[in-house]
Amino acid sequence: MRTYLIAAALVLIVATAAAQTAPPPVVAPIPAPVQASVERLQKAALASDAAYDIVEGLTTEIGPRLAGSEAEAKAREWAVAMLRRNGFQNVRIEPFTIPYWERKVERATVITSNSRQNLVVVALGGSPAANVEAEVARFASMAALTDAAPESVRGKIVFIDEPTIRTQDGAGYGAGVAKRGQCGTVAAAKGAAACIIRSVGTHSHRFAHQGGTSAPRPAPFAPSAAVSPPDADQLTRLLARGPVRVKLEIAVETRANAQSGNVVGEIVGRERPDEIILIGGHLDSWDQGTGAIDDGAGVAITTAAAKLIRDLPRRPRRTIRVVLFGAEETGVHGGAAYARDHTGELAKHVVAAESDFGAREIYRMRSRFGEGALPYARAIQRALAPLRINAGDNLANGGPDVSGLRPLGVPMVELSQNGWDYFDYHHTPDDTLDKIDRAELRQNVAAYATFVYLAAEMDWDFRKAADTPAPTAR
Amino acid sequence: MRTYLIAAALVLIVATAAAQTAPPPVVAPIPAPVQASVERLQKAALASDAAYDIVEGLTTEIGPRLAGSEAEAKAREWAVAMLRRNGFQNVRIEPFTIPYWERKVERATVITSNSRQNLVVVALGGSPAANVEAEVARFASMAALTDAAPESVRGKIVFIDEPTIRTQDGAGYGAGVAKRGQCGTVAAAKGAAACIIRSVGTHSHRFAHQGGTSAPRPAPFAPSAAVSPPDADQLTRLLARGPVRVKLEIAVETRANAQSGNVVGEIVGRERPDEIILIGGHLDSWDQGTGAIDDGAGVAITTAAAKLIRDLPRRPRRTIRVVLFGAEETGVHGGAAYARDHTGELAKHVVAAESDFGAREIYRMRSRFGEGALPYARAIQRALAPLRINAGDNLANGGPDVSGLRPLGVPMVELSQNGWDYFDYHHTPDDTLDKIDRAELRQNVAAYATFVYLAAEMDWDFRKAADTPAPTAR
Repeated sequence: MRTYLIAAALVLIVATAAAQTAPPPVVAPIPAPVQASVERLQKAALASDAAYDIVEGLTTEIGPRLAGSEAEAKAREWAVAMLRRNGFQNVRIEPFTIPYWERKVERATVITSNSRQNLVVVALGGSPAANVEAEVARFASMAALTDAAPESVRGKIVFIDEPTIRTQDGAGYGAGVAKRGQCGTVAAAKGAAACIIRSVGTHSHRFAHQGGTSAPRPAPFAPSAAVSPPDADQLTRLLARGPVRVKLEIAVETRANAQSGNVVGEIVGRERPDEIILIGGHLDSWDQGTGAIDDGAGVAITTAAAKLIRDLPRRPRRTIRVVLFGAEETGVHGGAAYARDHTGELAKHVVAAESDFGAREIYRMRSRFGEGALPYARAIQRALAPLRINAGDNLANGGPDVSGLRPLGVPMVELSQNGWDYFDYHHTPDDTLDKIDRAELRQNVAAYATFVYLAAEMDWDFRKAADTPAPTAR
Repeated sequence: MRTYLIAAALVLIVATAAAQTAPPPVVAPIPAPVQASVERLQKAALASDAAYDIVEGLTTEIGPRLAGSEAEAKAREWAVAMLRRNGFQNVRIEPFTIPYWERKVERATVITSNSRQNLVVVALGGSPAANVEAEVARFASMAALTDAAPESVRGKIVFIDEPTIRTQDGAGYGAGVAKRGQCGTVAAAKGAAACIIRSVGTHSHRFAHQGGTSAPRPAPFAPSAAVSPPDADQLTRLLARGPVRVKLEIAVETRANAQSGNVVGEIVGRERPDEIILIGGHLDSWDQGTGAIDDGAGVAITTAAAKLIRDLPRRPRRTIRVVLFGAEETGVHGGAAYARDHTGELAKHVVAAESDFGAREIYRMRSRFGEGALPYARAIQRALAPLRINAGDNLANGGPDVSGLRPLGVPMVELSQNGWDYFDYHHTPDDTLDKIDRAELRQNVAAYATFVYLAAEMDWDFRKAADTPAPTAR
């Protein structure tokens, strides 16, 4: 026992010594008045329901906001009025057009010798119409379908029963999106009649998960639908008993040029108004739910954070631009339109971050900066630490609508929401306001306000390469 | 510290002394060979998935089983085959007819100045058809509507926003059933156009809770629907902003005489075959889900328990009768038919218990015995204790299909499942097999096997009045 204690103490001493000899991480200094403003912002954010009121208003007054729909147009009007009411400047709609797709009917019926049973399904974004009845061929994964001989699926409805793994950071969504995007193309290439995928989702509720398909058009694409997790299990149990036929009906409405648009509002910087901190969320939603976590929350968090900074006694040096993107769900059209329309000023985009992963507590801040700018990331991370946020790596994605700016040189920040239950609700009828917790939403606003204020007030260059001299360590 | 310890010790000594002077509760003795069989049954039940296989089969092969439907008829055929396969005797269908009601269409659309939004609704059992558009009048409770002046609701759609309280024993269901049963009658009497109730349910998912209405016919009854909890919240938020109109469409199919029936199977007693231990569940289900917890579980638990007793080296003295009731959901028709058809032998019904509260762990055994029979209740409770089951009171209800036999003198037992999350799934599309936990289901079977075996093997008279001599204390 004594020997063990001595050994443990030695380990501790050696470890401590090692830590002391390693150079401390370089953290950019934050002047005391700026730090005071950060603390003031955090305190205000944690005491305010301004973000909740925004997402409550959007999801209640507009409800579902399918890309290109009349409801999305009303959401833009709503957003313009809301931004003006909150004192934003240069409030405007930046319009663009998109291919419109709306599901009108989707029905799947299992037909066995003993019973006809309805399956809870949703037509996947972009799916063509269908009215087929065929035998089901089950595959445990997308890869298994890819490997299958065409003869084994010709004329059948393929069923990809691949599960979604629950993770904090949403990594499990990858496999889900792969099957959602590819199934229709691979099925069509092998002569299958249609494709049904197990819903991308971590819950076991009777909701089917909506989402876009990513097939390159006009490649042949089989009618595609997602089935709820309990219905996928039911189908698998029925298949274990013998052949199963399914009747799948899908009706859709499509138009070539539907109106969409991004809604923009700014807090113009006091010294460098042409330098832009770009934040936002997306205004559109899938149409089964009211788009509370996806992405009324992102709209609310980023708008409320910018508004808190606007309410400071002095505006920050740089301009904060809030962009509420249109038509994200059906193909990141708003992000593409933004990149196209703002090519000329991208070099002046200091940093960009989109909040599009719900409203659970943020647990990590990641950057995507030049190596020489990591001391700035560390400074922001230190400022975020009182909000219970860890320092992350330098591999931030930035969010769907802004990540396209990354290859164009725009630095990214990711404030990672805890995604543990995000895919329990995401893209289902269950994405409604009650899934947002006020206290967690406030923490999100505090985190965004902290990051955005520091990025806008300090003269940090997040593009800074590694070989340029780093700032002095504290 | 010492003083405190001494005081605590004194309290303990006094308490122990008090316990020793109070007379011990009188518990009927169980002979050692019977106790050995109880232990054997419990061990076998806790090691067997027989009940799971039954509920898996019923919910998979038949799926939803609406009272009076073709699916319910197929469920009866399925049950007859299943009982025969499991060695039951006298397997038969006891037919009866019921008024048939099926929802065909239900749609509710909120119409405000800014948007049209769909609400997730379900037509309530027995509702007439509807096609109305009217302003909504909200009431926080059924009592508030009852108190309202007719002028305030005439021509309107009344909306009862009364919540369901989460409880372990299901007590919160009472208020829910009251509004579900009464709203249509009270609304019609006051001249309202229709009635929408907040779903009876403790979840916050976008499912509307199905269920029967209990209005006395042919009293005027307004078209009635339940709205999911998140949609009820949405309606309330919209109403806080101003008047809201709702368009409600309901289409139904009705028939006067649809076929239903109870399925019966027996383990005939070796000495007193005319004395009956009646257990069972109900075979029908609402049609949104596959009726796993309501009540495939009850069918499975009671059948599997009886089968385990059948597999003992020697059959018990009395007959065990398993009844899988038809048409419970639309008005306890199966229970009523049983009471009618078996009037002549009710005096020989030793005890009855229906399992119709899901499949979570049983935490309590209640009786409804003559006062002189409480030592038998205590003996059963002692035998159930190793399964983590508490002794309950003598106020058992017995379950919907058998409680009608109580006023006719039949003693009741209630093995209370933990209902904490029962109303998260009950009567919604989410009542599917994945909501059943195999380990908890096994505990249910062990509990039923214990109670049923003791009731069938011992010569206990559960009707025994208080003034008859009680058995000797141990």
